[in-house]
Amino acid sequence: MSTESSTLSGLNQLRRIESSRVFQGVVIAIIILSALTIGAKTYDLPPLMEHTLSVLDNAITVFFLVEILFRFAACPAKKRFLLDGWNLFDTLVVVGSLIPLDNSEAVLLGRLLRVFRVLRLVSVVPELRFLINSLLKAIPRMGYIALLMFIIFYIYAAMGAMFFAEVDEELWGDVAISMLTLFRVATFEDWTDVMYATMEQYPLSWLYYLTFIFLTAFVFLNMMIGAILEVMGEEQNAKQAKEAHDERDEIARQLREVQAQLQALTEHVTRNRS
Amino acid sequence: MSTESSTLSGLNQLRRIESSRVFQGVVIAIIILSALTIGAKTYDLPPLMEHTLSVLDNAITVFFLVEILFRFAACPAKKRFLLDGWNLFDTLVVVGSLIPLDNSEAVLLGRLLRVFRVLRLVSVVPELRFLINSLLKAIPRMGYIALLMFIIFYIYAAMGAMFFAEVDEELWGDVAISMLTLFRVATFEDWTDVMYATMEQYPLSWLYYLTFIFLTAFVFLNMMIGAILEVMGEEQNAKQAKEAHDERDEIARQLREVQAQLQALTEHVTRNRS
Amino acid sequence: MSTESSTLSGLNQLRRIESSRVFQGVVIAIIILSALTIGAKTYDLPPLMEHTLSVLDNAITVFFLVEILFRFAACPAKKRFLLDGWNLFDTLVVVGSLIPLDNSEAVLLGRLLRVFRVLRLVSVVPELRFLINSLLKAIPRMGYIALLMFIIFYIYAAMGAMFFAEVDEELWGDVAISMLTLFRVATFEDWTDVMYATMEQYPLSWLYYLTFIFLTAFVFLNMMIGAILEVMGEEQNAKQAKEAHDERDEIARQLREVQAQLQALTEHVTRNRS
Amino acid sequence: MSTESSTLSGLNQLRRIESSRVFQGVVIAIIILSALTIGAKTYDLPPLMEHTLSVLDNAITVFFLVEILFRFAACPAKKRFLLDGWNLFDTLVVVGSLIPLDNSEAVLLGRLLRVFRVLRLVSVVPELRFLINSLLKAIPRMGYIALLMFIIFYIYAAMGAMFFAEVDEELWGDVAISMLTLFRVATFEDWTDVMYATMEQYPLSWLYYLTFIFLTAFVFLNMMIGAILEVMGEEQNAKQAKEAHDERDEIARQLREVQAQLQALTEHVTRNRS
Repeated sequence: MSTESSTLSGLNQLRRIESSRVFQGVVIAIIILSALTIGAKTYDLPPLMEHTLSVLDNAITVFFLVEILFRFAACPAKKRFLLDGWNLFDTLVVVGSLIPLDNSEAVLLGRLLRVFRVLRLVSVVPELRFLINSLLKAIPRMGYIALLMFIIFYIYAAMGAMFFAEVDEELWGDVAISMLTLFRVATFEDWTDVMYATMEQYPLSWLYYLTFIFLTAFVFLNMMIGAILEVMGEEQNAKQAKEAHDERDEIARQLREVQAQLQALTEHVTRNRS
Repeated sequence: MSTESSTLSGLNQLRRIESSRVFQGVVIAIIILSALTIGAKTYDLPPLMEHTLSVLDNAITVFFLVEILFRFAACPAKKRFLLDGWNLFDTLVVVGSLIPLDNSEAVLLGRLLRVFRVLRLVSVVPELRFLINSLLKAIPRMGYIALLMFIIFYIYAAMGAMFFAEVDEELWGDVAISMLTLFRVATFEDWTDVMYATMEQYPLSWLYYLTFIFLTAFVFLNMMIGAILEVMGEEQNAKQAKEAHDERDEIARQLREVQAQLQALTEHVTRNRS
Repeated sequence: MSTESSTLSGLNQLRRIESSRVFQGVVIAIIILSALTIGAKTYDLPPLMEHTLSVLDNAITVFFLVEILFRFAACPAKKRFLLDGWNLFDTLVVVGSLIPLDNSEAVLLGRLLRVFRVLRLVSVVPELRFLINSLLKAIPRMGYIALLMFIIFYIYAAMGAMFFAEVDEELWGDVAISMLTLFRVATFEDWTDVMYATMEQYPLSWLYYLTFIFLTAFVFLNMMIGAILEVMGEEQNAKQAKEAHDERDEIARQLREVQAQLQALTEHVTRNRS
Repeated sequence: MSTESSTLSGLNQLRRIESSRVFQGVVIAIIILSALTIGAKTYDLPPLMEHTLSVLDNAITVFFLVEILFRFAACPAKKRFLLDGWNLFDTLVVVGSLIPLDNSEAVLLGRLLRVFRVLRLVSVVPELRFLINSLLKAIPRMGYIALLMFIIFYIYAAMGAMFFAEVDEELWGDVAISMLTLFRVATFEDWTDVMYATMEQYPLSWLYYLTFIFLTAFVFLNMMIGAILEVMGEEQNAKQAKEAHDERDEIARQLREVQAQLQALTEHVTRNRS
């Protein structure tokens, strides 16, 4: 029993440390430092500086390892630690940068993994975590619109690859390249150059581009309007329901008082009469 | 009578099969397969693969034919089958790919018709059908704005063709070419190149471009705001009317109770008195 | 008296003709024909066609003159005819195309004036007139935002002309040219070319461009949000006020009935007692 | 005592002058004149004109100095004069243009400081001041979104500098240059040129660009929707709360009357009975 309680009190102490502002601040500082070393490595540096950076890099790796072990130790339900998405993400990033990398190919991969350490800032700052969560919630409502967009792109790309492949193999070679070209057209990036090239062979091909631009713009616009309305609708529903309830409640209470008064009066009249 | 009822039960069985999840899933899978073969044909393929694809293509054509006949058989009101827009669309796509095509020109047309098979995905997946229906509903409200935009484009294009035709025949040759050039300007695609060319001859022509850009942007912005407001207004109208009704109903019911109580009391007092 | 009444009945008949659907349809058809002749003139045409067009053009001019005189005759308050903005606009367009033009310079001006005939479509179709009126109403609310934008453009343009004039005289020669260049930057049209050129001499000049882009985008975004909110607020105010009023009215009416019942009961009790 | 009251009445007179429309108009006119001289200096001018402008410039400097001293004199709480942001800004601009500048470098700085005089228009016109204040209020709500955007840019820039530095040193040399290149990609400015260059070495690098564009567009879109909703929510909250209150108040008042009537009736019945 005493062992158990001491374990519990130890756990509580760990959790107190973990959620303290100092600990959070140190972790955020180290993540920013880690981001800076990643940025610094993209510059041409003197050998001494390079060496310092790689020592710093190892120190940060060790710190992150210790931090994740500490947070695991402070977690009351150890089996569920990795079920939390943010914990899983942090663990993967830390474990990823522990893998020893020798050949040059792998070194690049290792550096790539270190880049994702910057994302740990999101998992540590609660406001960013909340933001990401609300962004993730916005994805499903765009699912079918995205599918529709994909169908439009695919049909136009198939047509483009059919007719324009001989005009410019680089832009319309196959359906995949054509979809990339159409995405370029959708961003208005030098789209007239693409159009003028095909109009030389097919003078009516401006119809292809204009219908495509109008379709995508129209679907996109309606998607945006739909998104605004949906989010707005949800918020207003909640708010108005609450408000209407509050208001109704107060008037209903007053009316019940009136009814009670009437009831008392009726009883009074009846009683006196009998 | 027994024949009729057996026909009816046969019809019910067909409809049960048609609306079953397995049947829907198979149709969707075949449409996606059809889309993939269309995409695959845009690549350079070995002859064996080409042959396989064209066999597959014929199989898909037969499948779609069988499916549409099946759905026709399962339709209770056969005369109205083609009055439904989605059925008509499906039938046209299927019939279109049945037409035998010999010469090279027609082969291209045949392939074009096969591309539209991908659109059948929209007619089969209910969510996409709903999306398209709601997009179609958004068109009329943009009618007069589109007309106004066309008038602005036409006037500027007529002016452009009048003054700038001698500067660049390719961009301002006639009113139709000028409208295409103005659409390019409206998408900001290399519009300064167009402007600098005309400014060499008409130094004040930047006024033409800036007023055009401001006008179209202003009308477009107001159209977007109008669309947001209109859709929002409709939804809120429906919701608020319902809510206000609910709320009013409850309070009105309470008030009627109060009135009934008062009525009873008045009658009681009057009766006792007389 | 008989003269006066006959004048009045004549006036009424004129107005009946003017507002008839046939008359409106004919006027719209002639305006569209006029627009088509303006467009046709931008093409290279055979001499016979050119001649036909100029005859048609004169016929249209005469028709418009007759139409405006007819509408003037049908107007009950003749003195106020030109006070209506749309009437004034129509009159100016018609009178403008009556001025005889001889030399080549003036011919171009004459053709320019004819282009504005297309705008008469707006003054004739009531839905477009309504649209334009609501667009005009949107202008004042953008006044101060436009002034703020102008100040931002002016300050950046003055700075640009100060520092970058020696880099590229064509883009940053003086404050007016710089404003045009900044408008180009604001539309993202080849803005990096402009930036890379100045960054060769002033390596930190990306700060100039980025702050400018962020400022204009931020102000524009807030202007758009403001516009949406303002229009929405107006509509909702009107609607909610009406709804709340309706609702309150009904409950208040019921409550007045309750009060009347109570009053009657009180009087009844009091009268019987005395 | 007489000295104090005369000081007070002097102060009041100063404030009356300061807030008079004539004084405000003169200040606005001088600021616009100052803006025009700044603009005029960017043109090549004859020596006489140049001289006139520099005399005018000095006169404006003196006027602004006198004006700020006047406003300081008219300010009742002299110690808090500089605590007001607009006063501080005005003082800094005026003092800045007083510093004597000799060498050519400093002359440029002096001219730069004079440019900011145009911003005094914002501090003088109340509507612009209100606009700026409401724009400043919009900044904090964008804070975390801006941080998230920065993290996305930083991670992609670090990856870009890692992999693409050897493709084009000018575009992907280090993490800072890469961020500028990514901003260019985010504005769709010749982004396909950047992409096609890296696709020659890394054929799959289109994934890098497309995920980046989708991420930034998605976050930006959600930020915009969020901003619209937040501002709208605030306004509606205030409005609806007020409305609901007004409505409830009136019905509650009527109900209280009913209760009072009932009370009176009950007392009447009870009194008579006893």
